[in-house]
Amino acid sequence: MSSTKSYAAQSETTPLTPWTINRRDPKPTDVQIDIKYCGVCHSDLHFAKNDWGMSVYPLVPGHEIVGIVTAVGDKVSKFKVGDLAGIGCLVDSCRECHNCKDGLEQYCSNGWVGTYGGMEKDGSGATYGGYSKCILAHEDFVLHLSDKQPLEAIAPLLCAGITTYSPLRRWNVGKGQKVGVLGLGGLGHMGVKLAVSMGAEVTMLSHTPSKEADAKRLGAHKFVLTSDEEQTKTVAGYFDFILDTVSAQHDYNFYLNMLNTNGTMVCVGAPPPAEPIVPFNLIFQRRSIAGSLIGGLPETQEMLDYCAEHNIVSDVEVIAMKDINEAYERMLKGDVRYRFVIDMATL
Amino acid sequence: MSSTKSYAAQSETTPLTPWTINRRDPKPTDVQIDIKYCGVCHSDLHFAKNDWGMSVYPLVPGHEIVGIVTAVGDKVSKFKVGDLAGIGCLVDSCRECHNCKDGLEQYCSNGWVGTYGGMEKDGSGATYGGYSKCILAHEDFVLHLSDKQPLEAIAPLLCAGITTYSPLRRWNVGKGQKVGVLGLGGLGHMGVKLAVSMGAEVTMLSHTPSKEADAKRLGAHKFVLTSDEEQTKTVAGYFDFILDTVSAQHDYNFYLNMLNTNGTMVCVGAPPPAEPIVPFNLIFQRRSIAGSLIGGLPETQEMLDYCAEHNIVSDVEVIAMKDINEAYERMLKGDVRYRFVIDMATL
Repeated sequence: MSSTKSYAAQSETTPLTPWTINRRDPKPTDVQIDIKYCGVCHSDLHFAKNDWGMSVYPLVPGHEIVGIVTAVGDKVSKFKVGDLAGIGCLVDSCRECHNCKDGLEQYCSNGWVGTYGGMEKDGSGATYGGYSKCILAHEDFVLHLSDKQPLEAIAPLLCAGITTYSPLRRWNVGKGQKVGVLGLGGLGHMGVKLAVSMGAEVTMLSHTPSKEADAKRLGAHKFVLTSDEEQTKTVAGYFDFILDTVSAQHDYNFYLNMLNTNGTMVCVGAPPPAEPIVPFNLIFQRRSIAGSLIGGLPETQEMLDYCAEHNIVSDVEVIAMKDINEAYERMLKGDVRYRFVIDMATL
Repeated sequence: MSSTKSYAAQSETTPLTPWTINRRDPKPTDVQIDIKYCGVCHSDLHFAKNDWGMSVYPLVPGHEIVGIVTAVGDKVSKFKVGDLAGIGCLVDSCRECHNCKDGLEQYCSNGWVGTYGGMEKDGSGATYGGYSKCILAHEDFVLHLSDKQPLEAIAPLLCAGITTYSPLRRWNVGKGQKVGVLGLGGLGHMGVKLAVSMGAEVTMLSHTPSKEADAKRLGAHKFVLTSDEEQTKTVAGYFDFILDTVSAQHDYNFYLNMLNTNGTMVCVGAPPPAEPIVPFNLIFQRRSIAGSLIGGLPETQEMLDYCAEHNIVSDVEVIAMKDINEAYERMLKGDVRYRFVIDMATL
């Protein structure tokens, strides 16, 4: 066991404070990573505050992890010391179910192991995330990173990137399609960049007028202020696909009516349930509403390679570890453009 | 104009009673049909009672119409006098929008004309349905019927058949797939027969124990009593596809949890909205919920040909026209196995 500096929430009511964790002993298939940066995902905050009722304390958040390989086990074949490497939301899964075999580890029938707040399958205890100096994982759950992009701006791709990339690919978003991206935050800003890169006509749907300029800078072709009834009318039955990244409560019916025949709205945020869906809103134009959860390991690597090829990274604000609680406060107010990333040299 | 006997609701509170309608003058592209049988759809009842707030009176219901061609216009090329012919839910559409051009007239961007309760596009007035002696329509909205199947049992295919066939085809239901059919009524019994014929493993989901024997007789491989917690547990995450035919209020979440990864539940009934969907139920297994409305004209003909080839018809109880109000009462209690069909010789 090696002891490692970290920042942890000791309970749902206390701020994150320094804490020392003991990482498990490395296994022959493990890759050990010196963490350089870790992105700050909205889920980190939900887990720290136990918003979903499943948190176990002490909790070390962080699942947008990038760094440099410092050691590899005897049986590791994909990584060597000195490689850039990343870890996203998963560090293990059963590897035996049909979903794991299909590279859909995020839907593992026997339960995948979260990078933090999960329990190791070997019984060695809880998993602790990337708000720390070092981490290790089975090489199958470690990703290769490009050395051509700023490392801190790659970090958010490990969650925000794959969470938006996966549904865009699953629903074949591309040239000739009209795509709405709902919400311009950590997920939404990646959704815009990715959908634009895939050739779609992209409209940002937001109730914040001040985000128009930013949306267009990120590549959005249109901006619709959803609080403006006249603007909203112009996109009735308009979109082939809507990527809904909003985690605040909202009425799906309002957005379903913006879908064209056969259109699909995919939710990647997890808002509290709002209004029931009116069946006619689905039936009359054969519309669908679906959900999507991050992405599997093969697709995450594909996304990282795609982003390297298309020069896509996240817009980040780098912070010091000690400023994490303030960053959470600002995140709650939407005051981040568009992802905080912790510089682990400051820990 | 020709005058025709019919049964009509004169208001939302009065029973259906005899009435004489004046059909429009035939056009060169029209096919005129002597109606032999007309199926009784649950929508007929909804319209007669103005449940959806869009009824116009007097209202002559009926959109599962089968009969014999008695006259054709000069420009009709697809039908001749003496042919068997059917009319379903639509008698016209704009024919110019992308959906009409794609044979999806039921999603016409400019509004299709319902077989009853609609307004003719030429301004000649309201449309009246199949609870009458004769009807006429543009040949493009008239269907060819098999002479190898009992005519009365073909009638319900025009709505119940196509409404269930269309989503089964759209979502590629077939061999190797596990399909749940929710609700065993007019739509559900067609859904079971069709899904079985397509090679799927079909499970009837019902809260009525007495329907098990019937479900199996119709071809269902399994029966799950949804009011029984233990039985319901056996289908958690089980289905690739659920066809939801229920028009009574129900909680979609309960059934979404029966879907496997990537599973889709398609609603063809239009129940009053119930519980809001919990996003996690969609997100955690990339599930979808969608709606589907009847089917377009080309697909309706395809379905009729498919049913003729596979010897599929509806289970019907033939009634006299004068018994329609009693039939509505029985339909409300679910006391029909599985479709009333009016013998128009009794009018």
